Amino acid sequence: MKKTLLSLAILSSFAAHADEGMWMPQQLPQVAKQLKAAGLKLDPANLTKLTEFPMGAIVSLGGCSASFVSPQGLVVTNHHCVYNSIAVNSTPERDLLKNGFLAKTMADELPASPGSRIFVTDEVTNVSNQVITPEVAKLTGKARIDAIEKNQKTLVAECEKDAGYRCTVASYYGGLEFYRLKQLEIRDVRLVHAPADGIGKFGGDTDNWMWPRHTGDYGFYRAYVSRDGKSAEFSKDNVPYKPKHIIKLAQDHAKEGDFVMVLGYPGRTNRHRLPSEVAFTFDWNYPAFVQASGETLAIIDRETKNDPAARLKYAGQIAGVNNYYKNRKGMLVSYQSSDFLQRKTAEHNALKAWVNADASRKAQYGADIDAAEKLIAERDAGTKKGFFLTYAQPKFLTSARTLVRLANERAKPDTERKTGYQDRDLPRLTSVIEGQDRTYDEKVDKALVLNFLKQYNAQPAAEHDASFDAALGIKPGMSEAELKSALDRIYAGSKLASKEERTAWLKKSPADFKASNDSFIKAAVAMYDADIKDEEKGEESAGKIQQAYGNYMKAKIAYMNSRGQAVYPDANSTLRVTFGKIAGRDVGADGTTGWTAFTTVSGVTAKHTGEGEFDAPDNQLAAIQAKNFGKYADPKLKTLPVNFLATLDITGGNSGSAALNAKGELIGLAFDGTLDSIISDWDFNNKMTRSIQVDTRYMLWNMKEVDKADNLLKEMNAL
Amino acid sequence: MKKTLLSLAILSSFAAHADEGMWMPQQLPQVAKQLKAAGLKLDPANLTKLTEFPMGAIVSLGGCSASFVSPQGLVVTNHHCVYNSIAVNSTPERDLLKNGFLAKTMADELPASPGSRIFVTDEVTNVSNQVITPEVAKLTGKARIDAIEKNQKTLVAECEKDAGYRCTVASYYGGLEFYRLKQLEIRDVRLVHAPADGIGKFGGDTDNWMWPRHTGDYGFYRAYVSRDGKSAEFSKDNVPYKPKHIIKLAQDHAKEGDFVMVLGYPGRTNRHRLPSEVAFTFDWNYPAFVQASGETLAIIDRETKNDPAARLKYAGQIAGVNNYYKNRKGMLVSYQSSDFLQRKTAEHNALKAWVNADASRKAQYGADIDAAEKLIAERDAGTKKGFFLTYAQPKFLTSARTLVRLANERAKPDTERKTGYQDRDLPRLTSVIEGQDRTYDEKVDKALVLNFLKQYNAQPAAEHDASFDAALGIKPGMSEAELKSALDRIYAGSKLASKEERTAWLKKSPADFKASNDSFIKAAVAMYDADIKDEEKGEESAGKIQQAYGNYMKAKIAYMNSRGQAVYPDANSTLRVTFGKIAGRDVGADGTTGWTAFTTVSGVTAKHTGEGEFDAPDNQLAAIQAKNFGKYADPKLKTLPVNFLATLDITGGNSGSAALNAKGELIGLAFDGTLDSIISDWDFNNKMTRSIQVDTRYMLWNMKEVDKADNLLKEMNAL
Repeated sequence: MKKTLLSLAILSSFAAHADEGMWMPQQLPQVAKQLKAAGLKLDPANLTKLTEFPMGAIVSLGGCSASFVSPQGLVVTNHHCVYNSIAVNSTPERDLLKNGFLAKTMADELPASPGSRIFVTDEVTNVSNQVITPEVAKLTGKARIDAIEKNQKTLVAECEKDAGYRCTVASYYGGLEFYRLKQLEIRDVRLVHAPADGIGKFGGDTDNWMWPRHTGDYGFYRAYVSRDGKSAEFSKDNVPYKPKHIIKLAQDHAKEGDFVMVLGYPGRTNRHRLPSEVAFTFDWNYPAFVQASGETLAIIDRETKNDPAARLKYAGQIAGVNNYYKNRKGMLVSYQSSDFLQRKTAEHNALKAWVNADASRKAQYGADIDAAEKLIAERDAGTKKGFFLTYAQPKFLTSARTLVRLANERAKPDTERKTGYQDRDLPRLTSVIEGQDRTYDEKVDKALVLNFLKQYNAQPAAEHDASFDAALGIKPGMSEAELKSALDRIYAGSKLASKEERTAWLKKSPADFKASNDSFIKAAVAMYDADIKDEEKGEESAGKIQQAYGNYMKAKIAYMNSRGQAVYPDANSTLRVTFGKIAGRDVGADGTTGWTAFTTVSGVTAKHTGEGEFDAPDNQLAAIQAKNFGKYADPKLKTLPVNFLATLDITGGNSGSAALNAKGELIGLAFDGTLDSIISDWDFNNKMTRSIQVDTRYMLWNMKEVDKADNLLKEMNAL
Repeated sequence: MKKTLLSLAILSSFAAHADEGMWMPQQLPQVAKQLKAAGLKLDPANLTKLTEFPMGAIVSLGGCSASFVSPQGLVVTNHHCVYNSIAVNSTPERDLLKNGFLAKTMADELPASPGSRIFVTDEVTNVSNQVITPEVAKLTGKARIDAIEKNQKTLVAECEKDAGYRCTVASYYGGLEFYRLKQLEIRDVRLVHAPADGIGKFGGDTDNWMWPRHTGDYGFYRAYVSRDGKSAEFSKDNVPYKPKHIIKLAQDHAKEGDFVMVLGYPGRTNRHRLPSEVAFTFDWNYPAFVQASGETLAIIDRETKNDPAARLKYAGQIAGVNNYYKNRKGMLVSYQSSDFLQRKTAEHNALKAWVNADASRKAQYGADIDAAEKLIAERDAGTKKGFFLTYAQPKFLTSARTLVRLANERAKPDTERKTGYQDRDLPRLTSVIEGQDRTYDEKVDKALVLNFLKQYNAQPAAEHDASFDAALGIKPGMSEAELKSALDRIYAGSKLASKEERTAWLKKSPADFKASNDSFIKAAVAMYDADIKDEEKGEESAGKIQQAYGNYMKAKIAYMNSRGQAVYPDANSTLRVTFGKIAGRDVGADGTTGWTAFTTVSGVTAKHTGEGEFDAPDNQLAAIQAKNFGKYADPKLKTLPVNFLATLDITGGNSGSAALNAKGELIGLAFDGTLDSIISDWDFNNKMTRSIQVDTRYMLWNMKEVDKADNLLKEMNAL
């Protein structure tokens, strides 16, 4: 799986199976018995302490998970989590993606991609009663959303008085509970080491989500802070961050059946959606996404075929789109051969029957369950209508709309601004806006927009967005040539592709925007009022949904509790723990009878074709052939392990998570699941679900024999 | 596995295992009991009759195997066996490789690639005593080779008095026996149907030699003859050939455990080589080949990256090189983890001990065993020395050398000419020479030659070929720039890239050649005397080897017989039968516990990425999703099977072979083996060896649902 920037989920889930469960650290005492029975040798109570070992060593990259592995702020995560940082530092002449990168000294380390962050969680506080105060509980619609946002902002502002910290209020259990996370935000992040694509991305999109797997999906960052230990922007004067705790490398060999736990930041699961949401997602939304992704990939491929520089710029997007493309297709295949919707419908009907069987329950929940169904159906219809529009936006029109909004928000006092446009958000927003040309090529962008604009325009006039049409100068019924002319005109009239021009707008006033002749700025200004109106409409709906859905979830939890089933919250990009064991599977993929728990380097040699996605470096192949595996050779397998399977409950966002043994030592990094079990995000399947980890023995051996990263091995005490 | 043009093997082998054995049809009565026990419902005696059913329907394509499947001369084989015919008919504008091809009527069929043939075996005669007459038995060295060649030519000429037939004298059991094959040579071969690469080559080089496999490796030719039923060159007046027998499609569903036999033309196995040959091959020759192939692929890739037309021209060579590249690497991996050389050495030592234990045996075999070892070591040293030279030949220098030789041979009476240059050989030679520019691009050829010329030139001066150096104007110690200039000069000075110029030389005299100013012709003329001398030296060695080796094999057979073990000859591109059963395997590839016997269409969907090697056509994916499998759905698997595994003893040349059920009905087409068992060509491994077949149900379903080939289904009685 690939890096994901996941929005907060507002759903909860419950534990029905042994290895199902993304536990909040504070919940672990509830499963202490199971943890001990599974083999954990640490005191489970220790896992609840976020600033102690091992939790104190676990960090978020904002979309990926990672861990400190040296007292000098060295961070290990997945290759695909540092991929953009390799890409932005690559040129056709110095192709770090192809050749890998190793900083032999700290002075050789490279700045990570713009906006890269390392978040160290320091504190988690239950703030439920401060978000949903008795006053808020009485509100609905936009008023409710506004009040929740206001309370959240206050809680965040209070917390962020401590400079260098990033605070977030996250919703759990469908908005029944809120927790505030206080995280040190490290802004000077540097790329230290990544193996060549032929190791770190071995198997490429062909093997993505597949088993048997042979991917060396690891990479290293280093966290830097100011000399006084505070979060700071990149500076040569910065020094490596000294983490309070680090994860140590395992001394014992990992083997099948061993206890394993993964600590990280899973993004989002959807295990308690309404039947109508399941149907909407699998019958319309995912198929539409798959179609659009296929078109996107084909267009980027076509437009960059003879332009390696443009291809490098889009490498990150290609990887990201491909990843979800395959993911969604895999889910659709599982869905089509499953009875998920029928079960979901039956469960929902059983819940409603339980509610209706009791007058007080009916009074408490009945209307909100009906309202949730109705409101969500309306929201989904809107999503469907706006589908092509989201794809038909020129990249710098989107930037212009963000910039106009920023100018308008900046005219207000900080606390009254919309979330995302407060002073605290500006550094991130600035680095995103600054870096945009590094992943942009006009001919590619225009070709993508034209493709989806045609489809948008083929919709009935009634489904058009009048504000968008007017701003771009398009009309229903226009021919492709006319649409293309409109695009040519608007692209030619803008200077936002220039970094200097674009970033200058970060500081301008609404009046400056109104006076501008830049075509994208003009379009964004013209769309502004309609954008605000749309947002308000969306918030009115969201407020109603939040209320009704929250109460629906309350009913559901009460129902599950009445049946003796405990509940853990759905993933929402906050720190979680999942535990299980290293295990193969007795159901294989098509053509196989089952899966072993480990793959080995013999599979690298067998899969290597010398080109494309299966192109292991020559020196790696030679080292495999020489069998110099030393202490990294598994005593039972009698060779070097590469990847291993485990019965863990992970999802996107867990990428890069530390996989620890019973002593809390590092044995691997989670990086993927298998295609036939990723529908677990919606419908957990205990028999099928396996997470895929890269074995640290493979990582360390590559670092020693292939990339000669002795400096890092020494730093990790691995020599 | 891919199309191979294999030379005749001069080795024999023996059957030690149930499913090992590439039986000559006339040997089948010896294994009648096993055939019946395995489940064959036909009379085994019938399989010995080459002009009866089913043998009468089995044909050779000269490198691939195939079968007649309609009374109108329709031939089914593998997609990769018709690949060059698709490629030569493809252009960037009309890319038949990418899109597939279907002739809706006979008038739409396309000429196959130049030199394509369909050989229908009519007669096989034991001619051992006419080749090794008592006089020949007394000869050695070049005299022996000349006498054998003379006798063979006489036997061939006698047989080919029957116009339109191609006759061959093949050596079996290391030259102890010779058989004459009489084959109708169909010269008007047309491409009828091939699925899109996304089906026929699904998985590409990544999946080649791998399981699980999902390749629709099938394609169709049609055989045409003159109106009076004779072999003829392409003509619009030709009519479809009416085969005496055809293979019918199976009516029952194939399932695991079923009897299966494969009838075809396996190319070459090496199960009885000397230990020194094993060491030479695996320690030096295959590694050198792998290195050179990797370089070749990288150079073609680099040189054709921005030239799709050139890339199409090299598509066939890329596929061929890639295939052997992976094959040899797979063998090397198996070899490195095996005790093959030790076992081989122990067996050889046991044979020698057995020979030496008896004075008469020692007198009969002892000296020849020693001689074989010595002679073969010398031959291998020569191969090593000349390795880079074989790769450093400009394509049209090779053509020029062939043309010069042809002119000199044509000056002699036909029966005295060297094999390969007789009148009977001219049509094939002509079509090869004619078609050469269709697979040639100067910049690619020159880059390949330069790469290997540099390596040749880096060898000590003593290992240079003086004649080659003089003809090309190169000297030991030249810089890369100097070598490049020499190449630029010689390429610029030749017009052989022109089809007209090149083919004109087919009819010229030695004097014409001597008078030519064409640079490649001049070089070939300059090299001629040395070429003949080298050939004579080679023949002197070959004659000695043939004698010593033959006697060594005689000793080996006597030894094996003394231990009660029967012997079947090694593969030599002649018609063979292998039988076994449809079976999965309890040893999987790295990361899997085992293999099921069948793959299904669910694997196509799972592997599909939408680009590169895993790009199934949209209409196929839609049809899979719609599950319209009709009568092709397997009743047990409840879905459509794609490929299946069987315990058959096949090798290169078997590609396209009919896989028949117990009633002799078509259930599949053999097209590959698995990488971890292809060392079976040298060292048969009964536990691991599995052949891979495309299931006819998959083929027929694609033809019906994806390519709408109702015309062909009707012709095969499959509607």
